[in-house]
Amino acid sequence: MTTQALKAIAGADYVLGHSMYLEHLKPLLEGKTVISSSMGKEVDRAKQAIDLAGLHNVAIVSGGDAGVYGMASIVLEVLEHSGRMIEVEVIPGVTAANAAASRVGSPLSGDFAVISLSDLLTPLGVIEQRLDAVFSVGIPVVLYNPKSRGRPHNFAIAIEHARKHLDSGTPIAIVRNALREGEETIVTSLGEIEEHEPAIDMHTTVIVGGTESRIWRMGNDVKGIITPRGYHRKYVY
Amino acid sequence: MTTQALKAIAGADYVLGHSMYLEHLKPLLEGKTVISSSMGKEVDRAKQAIDLAGLHNVAIVSGGDAGVYGMASIVLEVLEHSGRMIEVEVIPGVTAANAAASRVGSPLSGDFAVISLSDLLTPLGVIEQRLDAVFSVGIPVVLYNPKSRGRPHNFAIAIEHARKHLDSGTPIAIVRNALREGEETIVTSLGEIEEHEPAIDMHTTVIVGGTESRIWRMGNDVKGIITPRGYHRKYVY
Repeated sequence: MTTQALKAIAGADYVLGHSMYLEHLKPLLEGKTVISSSMGKEVDRAKQAIDLAGLHNVAIVSGGDAGVYGMASIVLEVLEHSGRMIEVEVIPGVTAANAAASRVGSPLSGDFAVISLSDLLTPLGVIEQRLDAVFSVGIPVVLYNPKSRGRPHNFAIAIEHARKHLDSGTPIAIVRNALREGEETIVTSLGEIEEHEPAIDMHTTVIVGGTESRIWRMGNDVKGIITPRGYHRKYVY
Repeated sequence: MTTQALKAIAGADYVLGHSMYLEHLKPLLEGKTVISSSMGKEVDRAKQAIDLAGLHNVAIVSGGDAGVYGMASIVLEVLEHSGRMIEVEVIPGVTAANAAASRVGSPLSGDFAVISLSDLLTPLGVIEQRLDAVFSVGIPVVLYNPKSRGRPHNFAIAIEHARKHLDSGTPIAIVRNALREGEETIVTSLGEIEEHEPAIDMHTTVIVGGTESRIWRMGNDVKGIITPRGYHRKYVY
C-alpha cells in the first residue's frame, strides 16, 4: 500500500469494501464504522458510500489499484448521476499487473496490455477482438480474472488467440496472491501452459510474454521472465 | 510510494538512481552513500549496483514502477550476464499510467494498453504497429514519453493512428508531473488535441480514451474522464 492510501484510511469515518480486502486492513480500521459487502454488490456499495459522504469522510477500498477493474469508475458514475457536489479523490495503488510482474523479474519492462477475461460486464466477442489485436503485435499481455467457476473456458480461448501469433517458447508467468499471504508463482511457456491450468483461478494474474520476452535464469535456476527494453541494441554489457 | 519501497530504502547502504528521483527522496537518504547519474547511463548504473551488491545492501530507484520503463529489466539482464548469485528483489510501485489516471477520474477502469513513444530503444515502425493495433480495438491507451526534444514528431504520428480508429470526441487527458510538485492536468478531446500540444513534454503522460470513455462532469465543471466498466449493461443506477 502507498502512504497516501494509509493516510486516507486513517482520516476516514466510514470504510466500505469487499470483505476480503477489509480483512487485510483490519489493523487500520479500529474506531471506524466498517461496511463490508460481497462481489456483485458494487453498485449498491457505491450508492451507499455517496449517501454517507454527504455528512462523513468515507473511504472505499479496492484490491490493487481502484482505477483498474476496481471501484473508482462506478463510484464516479453513481456520483455523477446523483447530481451531488461531493469532493472525491481517487488514490492510485499497485495494480495486479505490476505486483505480479515484480514477483517474476521484469516481464513488463516496456509496452504492454491489460485484458480481463471476465465476460460479466464485457461481451466475450469484444474480449476476443482485443486479445487478438494485442497478441498480434507481440507485446506482453496481462490477463486479469483469467478463470472463475462461472467461465472456466475463457482462459483456453485466450490461449488459442495467443498461439495464432506467438511461438510455443513464449514465457508465461502465473502469479497467485501476488504480495499477499499464500503467494505462488509458476514460470512456464505457451507450449506447456495446459499442464498448469489447474493452478489458475480468480486470485491469479497471468502474464503472457511478448516476442522479446525470455526466461531469466540465475545459475541453472529459472527465476522469472525478462522483457529486455532494448539496451542490447545500443550498448555492449 | 509504498511502505515496502520505504523499507527497502531504509535498509540500503547505497542508493543509486537518476538525480531527479533521488532529489524526491532526500529526506530518506541521510547516512547513506548516494550515487546519482543521468539519463542514458542506465547500463553503467546497473553494472555499478551489481558490483556494490556483492558486499553491501544496494537500492536502485526508478520513478513510478521500476518494472515499467524503469531500471528492473536492465539490472536483471546485467546480473544474469555477470553470472553472479546475488539476491535481488523487484519492488513494485505506482506506474505513471495509474498515477496519471487517478488525477483525472477513472479513465483506465477496464482493459488498456501502455505504449512508449520513445524510439531510442524501439524502432518507430514497431511503435506504429503497436499503436495501430491497440487503437483499432478501442481500448484506452496510455502514451509514455509522448514527446522530447530528440523526437518532437512521434506524438503527432500517434495521434494520426488514433484518428484512423477513434472519433474526434474521444476524450484525452494530459497529465504533467502526476502526484508530484508542479502537477497539471488537461482534459480535452482527440479533435482538439493540437491546441494542447505545447503542454506535452517528457514529464507528461497522455491517456487517450477508448470507444467507451466519456467526459466526467460535476455540475458544469469538467472533472475528468470515466471509462464505464459496463455496470450500466446489467444494473439501473
